[in-house]
Amino acid sequence: MRIGHRPERDKRITSHVCLVARAFGAEGIYISGAKDQKICSTVKKVCEIWGGSFWVEFVSNPLKLIKNWKNNGGVVVHLTMYGLPLREIIKNICQDGRDLLIIVGGEKVPKEYYLEADYNVAVGNQPHSEVSALAIFLDRINNGEWEHLTFSDAKLIIIPSERGKIVKEFKEEKKDF
Amino acid sequence: MRIGHRPERDKRITSHVCLVARAFGAEGIYISGAKDQKICSTVKKVCEIWGGSFWVEFVSNPLKLIKNWKNNGGVVVHLTMYGLPLREIIKNICQDGRDLLIIVGGEKVPKEYYLEADYNVAVGNQPHSEVSALAIFLDRINNGEWEHLTFSDAKLIIIPSERGKIVKEFKEEKKDF
Repeated sequence: MRIGHRPERDKRITSHVCLVARAFGAEGIYISGAKDQKICSTVKKVCEIWGGSFWVEFVSNPLKLIKNWKNNGGVVVHLTMYGLPLREIIKNICQDGRDLLIIVGGEKVPKEYYLEADYNVAVGNQPHSEVSALAIFLDRINNGEWEHLTFSDAKLIIIPSERGKIVKEFKEEKKDF
Repeated sequence: MRIGHRPERDKRITSHVCLVARAFGAEGIYISGAKDQKICSTVKKVCEIWGGSFWVEFVSNPLKLIKNWKNNGGVVVHLTMYGLPLREIIKNICQDGRDLLIIVGGEKVPKEYYLEADYNVAVGNQPHSEVSALAIFLDRINNGEWEHLTFSDAKLIIIPSERGKIVKEFKEEKKDF
């Protein structure tokens, strides 16, 4: 969940948050605030080419969603430089197969999020970026599994290369009978 | 080294790249293009409060700098989704105490960078962000040491907290004799 998205100022940062969420294994993203068509179309275009069913949903009442998430047995993590060190707390974040909601904020996150979160986690206690904080957290929670992530419906797949750009393209074709 | 910085469009992404570089242990950043005062002042403000001597330098000829870097014995890594998988190549990136230059680009990186780099490294073969790619690469190259990074001249230090914001403030005072 991305909170505090301001369409003009944040459109590229929020787009990057979406792409990181997708590439590092999240199923989808909630964004608080009014629907920002730009973000939706960026993500849609990426999924059309690179595959997967990553979803984007804009929510008007993020705190209510968080409370419902917890009531339904889900776990809520809030990433903040003021929280407890990732290396220490990661082993305590017990999912037991429960759904995980990860909150990343902008510059000023209201107190309620700190209070509602099951865990306030610091990806370092230095200022950096919600983009990198989310990537490192997802990396740790999934033990680096994102490196093996594939999307079966991808139209393009990269063939790793030492010095070039090699892509494999899958074309859909409608055969005549 | 951040290449392809466009002041209007990229100012926040490039700022985040700078902050990630600093927080994950880099000494400084080269940015290709005309001097962008906004980036400099963002980084300066962060260093004044949170410490360290992270530097920002704008360069007009990044390829020349890369060639000089290699001539002086340094190693050059280019982060690109088209490169070789991080998990496989990280053990081959032999620094032997040599200076490491990490290149992150924008949307379209010219061919020359792929050819000049000692290693083209993919932090996953999915599109995400130069911000997250840099964070994950620095995390791996430094074995997570960034979590223990401290800046001795910091004016503010965060005391990790379960649910609050606790900071320790250091005030400089000039005592009368």
